[in-house]
Amino acid sequence: VTGEHSNPSPHWRSLIERALGEAAGDPAAYHVQVATVTPGGRPANRTVVFRGFIAGTDWLCFVTDVRSQKARHVRNQPWGEVCWYLAASRQQFRLAGELALVTGDETDAALQQARQAAWTALSDRTRRQFFWPEPLLPRARPAAFEVAAPDGAQPPATFCLLVLRPTQVDHLDVGSYPHRRTVYRLQASGQWSQETVNP
Amino acid sequence: VTGEHSNPSPHWRSLIERALGEAAGDPAAYHVQVATVTPGGRPANRTVVFRGFIAGTDWLCFVTDVRSQKARHVRNQPWGEVCWYLAASRQQFRLAGELALVTGDETDAALQQARQAAWTALSDRTRRQFFWPEPLLPRARPAAFEVAAPDGAQPPATFCLLVLRPTQVDHLDVGSYPHRRTVYRLQASGQWSQETVNP
Repeated sequence: VTGEHSNPSPHWRSLIERALGEAAGDPAAYHVQVATVTPGGRPANRTVVFRGFIAGTDWLCFVTDVRSQKARHVRNQPWGEVCWYLAASRQQFRLAGELALVTGDETDAALQQARQAAWTALSDRTRRQFFWPEPLLPRARPAAFEVAAPDGAQPPATFCLLVLRPTQVDHLDVGSYPHRRTVYRLQASGQWSQETVNP
Repeated sequence: VTGEHSNPSPHWRSLIERALGEAAGDPAAYHVQVATVTPGGRPANRTVVFRGFIAGTDWLCFVTDVRSQKARHVRNQPWGEVCWYLAASRQQFRLAGELALVTGDETDAALQQARQAAWTALSDRTRRQFFWPEPLLPRARPAAFEVAAPDGAQPPATFCLLVLRPTQVDHLDVGSYPHRRTVYRLQASGQWSQETVNP
């Protein structure tokens, strides 16, 4: 599962990167919503922060806690869909594919290195969250949230990457009228097909 | 299924309304992501515009086209989860419940009236979209998108409400540190329980 590939960057990726450029550093542009399916077959949906593409791939990288509900969902059913709406340029990207967790047990060296780098890149405030008490349990006393500054070099066992490997990208341009919509699909060859459809 | 109820407004609703007030008319504050499950059991996720609560209820109202994929999903499996992230106040609300379509065939007078009112409230540009060619088919020629100004009083058969009846609301306040998280659950009595949990 190493991330190296030699295909050119898909067109949808350059559209996302352009839209991020138009957002001019607005942190909200990096907020996306990732949907998963619960073991009971119901949808779940929450906001996560885009942390970049895994080097050498077109896989989207997020971080999460192995104790989170989304990590549980992914272990049970890996399919996810990310909805990324970039308000400044009125572009929506719906990226569907398999989600994978990259934990401390990951044996792929490139992915383990990506996990390490993502940990180091986090703010101290965000790193402390991985030492907070178990999510969704009844609220712990305030002292349980007072944690010492974590080691920025060594991620804890609670820290993992959430990686989306898109196989379909549905791009809707609401900034044009009539709206434009294009669906990109990953082929077995590793190339992306592209179809222009009605919005 | 009429929308009348006599219970007081749930606390999560007043929190949403306060956060909307803090957003001070920013249109992006009304954009939410709704997740559904496809007939194949995979998640789907897209941005929709919040159109208000159905009068006399705490049900969230959106509009959609009966030909859209989300309408197809809801007919197959009604469970949905809306993720509403209000960036200005750093509040996230995850609203889970059953989704329902209110079409021209709706026999409940209050819901049919809500459909009528939602149609009238739309902009002319938005109303025209309901006369565009079938979504997701190969892109039609430009002339197919040139439609005359629709009658603002009479919604077409393609126009329906998408109504979420929340039964659980997960509120995460990322603006405070440590984050605050509260889960609200609708009881059989019609009252909402409230549990403060670890974020």
